[in-house]
Amino acid sequence: MLLVFRLGHRLPRDERISTHVALVARAFGADGMCYSGEEDRGLEESVKKICERWGGNFSINYEPNPMKFLKNAKKKFTLVHLTMYGMPLHKKINKVKKEKNIIVVVGSEKVPSEVYNIADHNVAVGSQPHSEVSALAVFLHEYFKGKELDKKFKNAKIEIEPCERGKKVII
Amino acid sequence: MLLVFRLGHRLPRDERISTHVALVARAFGADGMCYSGEEDRGLEESVKKICERWGGNFSINYEPNPMKFLKNAKKKFTLVHLTMYGMPLHKKINKVKKEKNIIVVVGSEKVPSEVYNIADHNVAVGSQPHSEVSALAVFLHEYFKGKELDKKFKNAKIEIEPCERGKKVII
Repeated sequence: MLLVFRLGHRLPRDERISTHVALVARAFGADGMCYSGEEDRGLEESVKKICERWGGNFSINYEPNPMKFLKNAKKKFTLVHLTMYGMPLHKKINKVKKEKNIIVVVGSEKVPSEVYNIADHNVAVGSQPHSEVSALAVFLHEYFKGKELDKKFKNAKIEIEPCERGKKVII
Repeated sequence: MLLVFRLGHRLPRDERISTHVALVARAFGADGMCYSGEEDRGLEESVKKICERWGGNFSINYEPNPMKFLKNAKKKFTLVHLTMYGMPLHKKINKVKKEKNIIVVVGSEKVPSEVYNIADHNVAVGSQPHSEVSALAVFLHEYFKGKELDKKFKNAKIEIEPCERGKKVII
């Protein structure tokens, strides 16, 4: 079980970024995403629509109290916090790969220091500013060893057949 | 020389996504980004501010006529278009890695069919919907073999020292 926790969602500022975080989580093999901050039915609906159309069992849930949730989740899950301040990905990934139940925590602008303390691993996908979307994708790409890109999604209404030019869509 | 071309930037919708695309381009080793669509001094300024602070020679330029630019660039560059409709990354990456001058083209909502035709390679970072931010990051991560995450940026005013917990910033 691998979940993504998106901290501190803000409306309207994070609408698209959080949607992209959720889509990356789904496409790169996570089972679901929780988010905190402002509750956003629009975000949930757009992710659910993608899931209905493109298949799979990806879940999205709002958590009003992220610290309580994460503290509780520690009984079952290893908490991996993605932060540019953490330890380099290549130094952490082999250890993290051995864990089967993981919550990958990604922040927004300001992450409370408690998160750095509660995390089992603070992992940096590079120590330069970029994006929670890219950090999550590269982390999951390393964690699943590239196999996530071939993942099949059950009950898909639409699928893409790879091609050299143009678009081949199977409906 | 590796450049990123961000097609069809729209205001205000793409403000943050295009900024994240630019930051990923910079952090994952590209030399610069061009963008088309709506000209956006705010986007350029925020990227320039990051570069001043975090170092390196990353450039950002507006191109009003992307097709003319790309046609002309084909004389010198291999054009790699990232699209979920393209050929799987693992089937293309070894060929692309041999090329030294590359423009990586990433779209917004609607990419004109000309782009699929002019591209030397249409490459899919998975055939599921996610994000141009994540597609670009994973592509560059594969292209630079993970070494991009250790890249040093010249003349940085600020640097991060990786640590297990908290933040270590060298100013």
